[in-house]
Amino acid sequence: MTYRITLLPGDGIGPEITAVARAVLEHVAALEGFRIEFATCAFGGASIDEFGEPLTEATLKTCQASDAIFLGAVGGPKWDRADARPEAGLLALRKALGVYANLRPAAVHPALAGKSPLRPDLVAGTDVLIVRELTGGIYFGTRERSADSASDKCTYSRGEIERVARIAFEQARLRRGKLTSVDKANVLETSRLWRDVVTEMGARDFPDIELDHMYVDAAAMHMLRAPASFDVIVTENMFGDILSDEASMLPGSIGLLGSASLGENKPGLFEPIHGSAPDIAGQDKANPFGAIEAVAQLLESLGETAAAGRIRDAINTMHEAGEW
Amino acid sequence: MTYRITLLPGDGIGPEITAVARAVLEHVAALEGFRIEFATCAFGGASIDEFGEPLTEATLKTCQASDAIFLGAVGGPKWDRADARPEAGLLALRKALGVYANLRPAAVHPALAGKSPLRPDLVAGTDVLIVRELTGGIYFGTRERSADSASDKCTYSRGEIERVARIAFEQARLRRGKLTSVDKANVLETSRLWRDVVTEMGARDFPDIELDHMYVDAAAMHMLRAPASFDVIVTENMFGDILSDEASMLPGSIGLLGSASLGENKPGLFEPIHGSAPDIAGQDKANPFGAIEAVAQLLESLGETAAAGRIRDAINTMHEAGEW
Ligand SMILES: [Mg+2]
Ligand SMILES: [Mg+2]
Repeated sequence: MTYRITLLPGDGIGPEITAVARAVLEHVAALEGFRIEFATCAFGGASIDEFGEPLTEATLKTCQASDAIFLGAVGGPKWDRADARPEAGLLALRKALGVYANLRPAAVHPALAGKSPLRPDLVAGTDVLIVRELTGGIYFGTRERSADSASDKCTYSRGEIERVARIAFEQARLRRGKLTSVDKANVLETSRLWRDVVTEMGARDFPDIELDHMYVDAAAMHMLRAPASFDVIVTENMFGDILSDEASMLPGSIGLLGSASLGENKPGLFEPIHGSAPDIAGQDKANPFGAIEAVAQLLESLGETAAAGRIRDAINTMHEAGEW
Repeated sequence: MTYRITLLPGDGIGPEITAVARAVLEHVAALEGFRIEFATCAFGGASIDEFGEPLTEATLKTCQASDAIFLGAVGGPKWDRADARPEAGLLALRKALGVYANLRPAAVHPALAGKSPLRPDLVAGTDVLIVRELTGGIYFGTRERSADSASDKCTYSRGEIERVARIAFEQARLRRGKLTSVDKANVLETSRLWRDVVTEMGARDFPDIELDHMYVDAAAMHMLRAPASFDVIVTENMFGDILSDEASMLPGSIGLLGSASLGENKPGLFEPIHGSAPDIAGQDKANPFGAIEAVAQLLESLGETAAAGRIRDAINTMHEAGEW
């Protein structure tokens, strides 16, 4: 078996953590007996410097022809005043790939519970996966602005909700079988549709999954009161933005976390959740665990669960040895 | 000086904690030499039982004629299937009073830092006030729903933002002089207007206040990473709903917290943030600290700062003695 993986090192610490990701991929491929063909493309600020735009047509073609994409990080002060913004490349890439679900796991290893801002006794055992809808809702709604007024519209269709909920139900089936759907159905019409659709799907297609519903404000509280009680959370774009960032604090460092963006078809997009940290770039100070975690997610998406398991075991061994 | 204060005991544990609030008010009035005329009215479920509606015209008139209103709590399973809902009384009251700013303080007393879900070293010194816009935004926007689609519209006008921001700036001036305005100005048009208006007001009317801006997802993280770094936060309705509930976890019990809802004119509405807890009603188990904190806020709004200070001192003394 040969996989084509596109590497987008990007900016700041992106290249150095991408080098680690590649080394890990090569290592587990040798151990598990599959092959990887890598393609490396400039992306973000690096692509602006070289080609004048953050995502070239050639890079996009390479990405689309691959089985999975690993992204380091994009952006930095160098391009803050540029006409072309590195982050625009990321939005364009997500759109072209049609990825609509963002998966953000946040697990607290027992050896690291003392690093959490939460009390160790409370945070122990936390292993939550937030599935965030990525292409709809108020972040992509129509906007209006006059001198004295502004508006943003949040819209969801049944199809948009179903496809992301399906990924969340399937993830719950691979994990502990519990799904919490987060909305504000006591107030919002989009949330009432969200709840209706998720409830119908659960009863029809996933009767084996324990489904519950929680209001977004209650979920923001529950994340602090009983984080270990969550398994998979599914929610709309903006609620997912807020809750996944809140949850990212639980392990004590965002440097440990990866994320996957998935659509109907391959390839998915895998990246650490941290930024490009230009202030420490090139100094061998960047925490590579987030990138390595993203590699484990990438391999899971390819069905290489044994290789992903090897990586997770190695991460755990490192944490137990006091390294992170 | 004589103040007219309307008491709305409401449902569940509402009456018993309202009795405590009244006793505290009478006590500090005697100590500080002012008088209080109390009016007590049925409200919420209790009013439905007696009059068939959660807020009668007579009760509203009494409220409007008073200097401040203390509300216990409303709701309970008894009225879950009723045509008239207790919570509808609260919405109608807020609307009639024209209150548009909800003030939710969350302070962590050093003696209680061990009760917080956060590590004591991290949460120590936390004393944050969240000022939430209460009558605009997506919670009050136009809604649409078809079988396969739904939408909610978020709208803000300059005037809506100015009036709540003014209260927040003034609160910051009474506290440590720092205001953090929370928005999502990198995405939302309403947030860009929000940021423009708050920035203009700060430069023009409150140059003495240290103003900064934070995205809502970053604020949800920062609340866990460095909660003690916040003084006053001002934000729109939905962000305030989520962030104030997240912040309410920091002191370790929502039973300790009060809230104030203020408008252009008197009277303001003061209440503990907890619910009616019908399961423990009438058993003398309800934590009265939230109601007592709300009484302190009520007295501050009347300008009776010495009386409010006495209450805060007494609360602190109780916490130091291990009572809460
Ligand atoms: Mg975010
Ligand atoms: Mg709430």
